[in-house]
Amino acid sequence: MFEVAELGNKISSEEYDKEESRLREELLQLQQDLRLAKFPVIVVFAGVDGAGKGETVNRLSSWMDPRWLVTNAYSDPSDEESERPEFWRYWRDLPPKGQIGMFLSAWYSKPVVDHAWGRIGTPEFDEQLARIQGFEKELAADGALIIKFWMHLGKSQQKKRLKKLENDPHQAWRVTDNDWRNWKNYDGFIRTAERTILNTSSGENAWTIVEGEQSRYREITVARHIRDAVRQHLKTWDIEQKVVAEALKKRAEEKQEKDSQIVDPKQVQIVPAPTRTILSTLDMTQQLERPDYKTQLKKQQSRLNRLYREAKARGISSMLVFEGWDAAGKGGAIRRLTAAMDSRDYRVLPFAAPTDEENAHHYLWRFWRHLSRAGKVSIFDRSWYGRVLVERIEGFARNHEWQRAYAEINSFEEQLVEHGIVLMKYWVHITPEEQLERFGEREKIPYKRWKLTDGDWRNRAQWGAYEMAVHEMIERTSTRNAPWTLVEGNNKYFARVKIIESYCKQLEKTLGINANDKDD
Amino acid sequence: MFEVAELGNKISSEEYDKEESRLREELLQLQQDLRLAKFPVIVVFAGVDGAGKGETVNRLSSWMDPRWLVTNAYSDPSDEESERPEFWRYWRDLPPKGQIGMFLSAWYSKPVVDHAWGRIGTPEFDEQLARIQGFEKELAADGALIIKFWMHLGKSQQKKRLKKLENDPHQAWRVTDNDWRNWKNYDGFIRTAERTILNTSSGENAWTIVEGEQSRYREITVARHIRDAVRQHLKTWDIEQKVVAEALKKRAEEKQEKDSQIVDPKQVQIVPAPTRTILSTLDMTQQLERPDYKTQLKKQQSRLNRLYREAKARGISSMLVFEGWDAAGKGGAIRRLTAAMDSRDYRVLPFAAPTDEENAHHYLWRFWRHLSRAGKVSIFDRSWYGRVLVERIEGFARNHEWQRAYAEINSFEEQLVEHGIVLMKYWVHITPEEQLERFGEREKIPYKRWKLTDGDWRNRAQWGAYEMAVHEMIERTSTRNAPWTLVEGNNKYFARVKIIESYCKQLEKTLGINANDKDD
Repeated sequence: MFEVAELGNKISSEEYDKEESRLREELLQLQQDLRLAKFPVIVVFAGVDGAGKGETVNRLSSWMDPRWLVTNAYSDPSDEESERPEFWRYWRDLPPKGQIGMFLSAWYSKPVVDHAWGRIGTPEFDEQLARIQGFEKELAADGALIIKFWMHLGKSQQKKRLKKLENDPHQAWRVTDNDWRNWKNYDGFIRTAERTILNTSSGENAWTIVEGEQSRYREITVARHIRDAVRQHLKTWDIEQKVVAEALKKRAEEKQEKDSQIVDPKQVQIVPAPTRTILSTLDMTQQLERPDYKTQLKKQQSRLNRLYREAKARGISSMLVFEGWDAAGKGGAIRRLTAAMDSRDYRVLPFAAPTDEENAHHYLWRFWRHLSRAGKVSIFDRSWYGRVLVERIEGFARNHEWQRAYAEINSFEEQLVEHGIVLMKYWVHITPEEQLERFGEREKIPYKRWKLTDGDWRNRAQWGAYEMAVHEMIERTSTRNAPWTLVEGNNKYFARVKIIESYCKQLEKTLGINANDKDD
Repeated sequence: MFEVAELGNKISSEEYDKEESRLREELLQLQQDLRLAKFPVIVVFAGVDGAGKGETVNRLSSWMDPRWLVTNAYSDPSDEESERPEFWRYWRDLPPKGQIGMFLSAWYSKPVVDHAWGRIGTPEFDEQLARIQGFEKELAADGALIIKFWMHLGKSQQKKRLKKLENDPHQAWRVTDNDWRNWKNYDGFIRTAERTILNTSSGENAWTIVEGEQSRYREITVARHIRDAVRQHLKTWDIEQKVVAEALKKRAEEKQEKDSQIVDPKQVQIVPAPTRTILSTLDMTQQLERPDYKTQLKKQQSRLNRLYREAKARGISSMLVFEGWDAAGKGGAIRRLTAAMDSRDYRVLPFAAPTDEENAHHYLWRFWRHLSRAGKVSIFDRSWYGRVLVERIEGFARNHEWQRAYAEINSFEEQLVEHGIVLMKYWVHITPEEQLERFGEREKIPYKRWKLTDGDWRNRAQWGAYEMAVHEMIERTSTRNAPWTLVEGNNKYFARVKIIESYCKQLEKTLGINANDKDD
């Protein structure tokens, strides 16, 4: 079965670069289409240790929009999990419709390992596979698109790969004693793997076996497959349902309408802030040139990678809050940040309008419910500060509500910090002129156009009111324990590096690491 | 401070009976009004061990509608809880707007015990009390009604009470070594209690000290206080918000309209089932007379109490599913069942329309997310069977969706049973004639009127279609591991006893207890 995946397939670095930029664009566009769709996408990665499951997931995550994508990996069940049936933990992690969930080994892990090591016999193994197949069929019948990759390596390839990882100081942590024990049992593992694939492949939920030796090859192969599968599913599932078809049609019409009566950006009047604010003290001319940026970004990402893994090992969580003007570059900064981390370890949480369950609670409840377990990084793309920004300006919160929010937020953050969580709060700042330019760019690039809404123009008109609100927010909530980091964002390169660097500094402080110890 | 709660206040049993029936009716009505309101009610019980906190909560729960009421008690944090800030577990248990959450000790427990035993000093204690006060203030500012009872006993009263509990074989389990250790430290505890009350009483969130010696007195006192506080809050908070005022007005208008053009029940045509169904084989004449019912109910409740506590001790959870015709008496049966259990140990989960978060997932997701931790009892008032009943009949699920649901449900239940969960599924059956009579009664009793909706009449007209769907549901999902219990419900007394008895039998079977061992 696996011979097809030991052919030594390779992709040249030129071909890779070309494909990569195209695939990134296509995947981002697909994620937007998917958001209108009424089905979730579930991507499962299983296979041989060292075949690059985790790395592939990380690479894909860095290409896609992390706000509509979650990676789930599983170690031993928590006590709350073991008190429920085995599949409870998977059910609770299923992505909602319109989003993508990546699952590392997940429900395959325990049966495969148990069988490969002879801890369960074949009849019991088959029963467990039947349950898995039932689970996947059920989700597929409900519309879910399930894509399964089996990452393969030959026996000698695996050995080579594990050795190579071990010799790389940045990667060595990936290889455990367990991996070597598994390698010695390679043939048993492959027998189990074959049975797994045979018993859990049905028309809709088939496995794709991917040759894991070359990272370029496996990344492109997996990304292409996901792209094609999502496209196909959008056509067959949702067109049948007529949901996306209509939504896409409507969007096209709106776009046309917009194009025909396009607002002249220069006609949107900005009402400036009545007084000088703290934002006006920022030196907005700071910048980094591209070559310098490339070097510094790499350096800071590598520093971050080391630090966040140390924090994870010590069970220290981080929460990073991103606030800023529309088009200030929050999304891009978040992607540069997550690129330095394993996608199993972070979660990007975008906050727009609350759900009806959230509306039935105190406004902080929706943030409390997303606090992560120990050692994880949570990135809040917009946050509880909405209370004193958009809710204040737009009148969604009444005066006494947003006024008391400062104290409520301080108390909330105090509890986070006291618990040992590293809390970073970024205000990404740009000037109105820079924003205007970026809005113009967005209208030109098709796959960025969805980002620009009428709301953005409306917010822009109220620049001064927002600026006063930001000023007051910083004044009232930049506490010793939870200070704001103001980021000069007119130059994206400068902003991205500043964000990662400041997070690194805070991690070093918390971990008690002297910055001078670093080796790069 | 506590002298006022050692006066020996008593309520005679005649006065109690009179008050009880009035309070029950008033509280049920208030719960309905509350459901329209835009605030939650948080009731905190703290105080001296043995002063009847748990018993009072249980009594109140038995009076009220358990569907809009949840009791939360806390032991040591789970690993998922200890990985987050201390208050995370309380935030996640906060009731949504329109509902009541009872909290036993909760956020007061640890600081009070730690301080009474000298594990923390007074400055640290004060800090923790300040955090609590901040938390409560925040909730109150958002509209929550917070009611706090401090249940008090004098030192000698407490000793007497603990002794008495110990000597009652049904209650002895309530007294632990810890309780006696605390008693020896009574004076220290009282000092801590005073400080707690002084530091956490503000205008809105004041404590009510309740004399805990006589159960009649404390129950009536607490119930009256809750009634008055909720009424008051409905007036001041929601009238200000004009939300309930309008809703109540609208409801009054609708009621008037309904009264004026009342449907003649006899004109609602019933389309009978085309063939004989399994329901037609039930002997609907079975009944219990009231005196016999009283005896049997008491006996079965006592049996259930013993059994469910044994199951709890062994970490065995139960899930009880209630389906049945409108007005079949599900609610009443559930209340008789929960009356035999401690309100900390069960949860009644009513299922109506899904929330938008639930709509974004597979239809079983909303049930998976409510699986309880080990040893708890979950009561589903309507359930996943809606898929093959109302969703099928009303066309909310398409044919292939409800058809495949049988297999999906069987697989779901198989996982529950395999995990060791005791699963009971009740179809509470009444005849169309009996239903008609009950609808008529409901229209007459003001506080039951909300139960009767136009939908009920609509469903009634489709009796035959529903009966066929029920028949097929039972045929397809009454498996050896998860059989249905059909309950002849024309006589409510008979039905209630049958339900509790069959649950007891299943518990005995699971626990390996011989029914003949029982001592009553």
